[in-house]
Amino acid sequence: MKLVRYGNPGDEKPGLLAEDGTLRDLSAVVDDINGGTLSASVLEHIRQLDLRLLPKVAGAPRFGPCVAGVGKFLCIGLNYSDHAAESGMVVPAEPVVFMKATSAIMGANDDVVIPRGSEKTDWEVELGVVIGKVAKYVSEEEALSYVAGYCVVNDLSERAFQIEGTGQWTKGKSADTFGPIGPWLVTADEVPDPQNLTLWLEVNGHEYQRGSTKTMVFGVAHLVSYLSRFMSLQPGDVISTGTPPGVGLGQKPPKYLRAGDSIRLGIDGLGIQTQRVVAESQSTF
Amino acid sequence: MKLVRYGNPGDEKPGLLAEDGTLRDLSAVVDDINGGTLSASVLEHIRQLDLRLLPKVAGAPRFGPCVAGVGKFLCIGLNYSDHAAESGMVVPAEPVVFMKATSAIMGANDDVVIPRGSEKTDWEVELGVVIGKVAKYVSEEEALSYVAGYCVVNDLSERAFQIEGTGQWTKGKSADTFGPIGPWLVTADEVPDPQNLTLWLEVNGHEYQRGSTKTMVFGVAHLVSYLSRFMSLQPGDVISTGTPPGVGLGQKPPKYLRAGDSIRLGIDGLGIQTQRVVAESQSTF
Repeated sequence: MKLVRYGNPGDEKPGLLAEDGTLRDLSAVVDDINGGTLSASVLEHIRQLDLRLLPKVAGAPRFGPCVAGVGKFLCIGLNYSDHAAESGMVVPAEPVVFMKATSAIMGANDDVVIPRGSEKTDWEVELGVVIGKVAKYVSEEEALSYVAGYCVVNDLSERAFQIEGTGQWTKGKSADTFGPIGPWLVTADEVPDPQNLTLWLEVNGHEYQRGSTKTMVFGVAHLVSYLSRFMSLQPGDVISTGTPPGVGLGQKPPKYLRAGDSIRLGIDGLGIQTQRVVAESQSTF
Repeated sequence: MKLVRYGNPGDEKPGLLAEDGTLRDLSAVVDDINGGTLSASVLEHIRQLDLRLLPKVAGAPRFGPCVAGVGKFLCIGLNYSDHAAESGMVVPAEPVVFMKATSAIMGANDDVVIPRGSEKTDWEVELGVVIGKVAKYVSEEEALSYVAGYCVVNDLSERAFQIEGTGQWTKGKSADTFGPIGPWLVTADEVPDPQNLTLWLEVNGHEYQRGSTKTMVFGVAHLVSYLSRFMSLQPGDVISTGTPPGVGLGQKPPKYLRAGDSIRLGIDGLGIQTQRVVAESQSTF
């Protein structure tokens, strides 16, 4: 299933994108698409519905973040060997774990705002993993059963704020608008192999990133198991699993985002994001 | 005012500790103590109440985390020069910013659980700052007006997970139970100078930490202003502002927490936390 949250910022409703392309309103079924509604039983209940009986949503509404009330926005750094190389860093022996602020989360097609003083705002297409039930000390073998679904993430990053400061990356990863997630939360049953998905990203029509989750250093099952040793994963938590080569930092010379740029990115079966880049003075956030 | 959340885990009610020592139930006034109820107007409304008309809470209930629904649990590293020295690190030129998982948050007197495989679980008494209204690009001069109040934080840390891995600290800061906050959220009007508070911590009755927020490298106003340049601070966000000297890592030889230990820590006017340390197999989390 392709679950969505549609409507104006802060006022989104839960919906479902049906196979016939129609958008159906799920408001009568669940309050929202959030940790509380991502359990296997609720998802199975939705799956059993006769979609023709649900209200059809007219027009082409905005898609908000595909999951609400995210408790943790976990990220994995340098998780594609070629991206580590282009960043001038070694492939890590274990997953590099950091967090983005949840206040950075926005809809898939909302504007990316360049923070004040930023010269090095960069892009990163990533596979997002959405947790469906509490995971704590889970084995790699059972890890995928804790995953409710997947989504596209653009892990926007300010490289000066991230790297040139104190060594801790949070500061360069957490600006408002730096975390578009969606447009859809695609349930795990529709993603039979999360390690065989093509990811791509273009800026102003030029393709900078194209890779496959096949070349991840640490796969989704390993990451869920690994993280669950250090903290409990909660329903609605999002894990962004790292980016393939082709970020702005890795270009020769480096290329960074400027107001007026447009970004498009996507992952097989998980949909496409399109963002306009704006200056902080132009933003409505 | 000393605001509290009292009752069983996950079922806490909002309360107020009155000057006569009685605990008063605020359930009829606010839903909870969270970002939505920390605005200046709501706090002023509570301040105007005749406490004698509020129900008195009998007995000595557990205090839960003093604020609910924390969106971001931000931490500042190496923010006391003597602590940087004992950690073998240099005093940073700018604040070292990282995040703890919000799932680590617990009540002030709940059990601290040693994670599986941990040999180096450590303590850190810290001044917690609770945000009351959205702060974005705020100046140092106006920064304190965005602070709703203060609380005690024990920024528990697993040093091997934190330092011996990949360089990113999140992993060693985020275990469940690693973030007791409270017992009280003391509103800012009762803390006239956040840079003149004594902090202390003892383990098994031995005092390991004693310091003053006077010797912070970056004070509260600077931190709020600084952070607001890199991300928006939201009502209910907690900033833990770093620890004075005397952590376990800094002892010669280093001393770490073991099941059966007891921790007591406090800050002038903000109350005292007491935690029992238990093995993961004994925990009810």
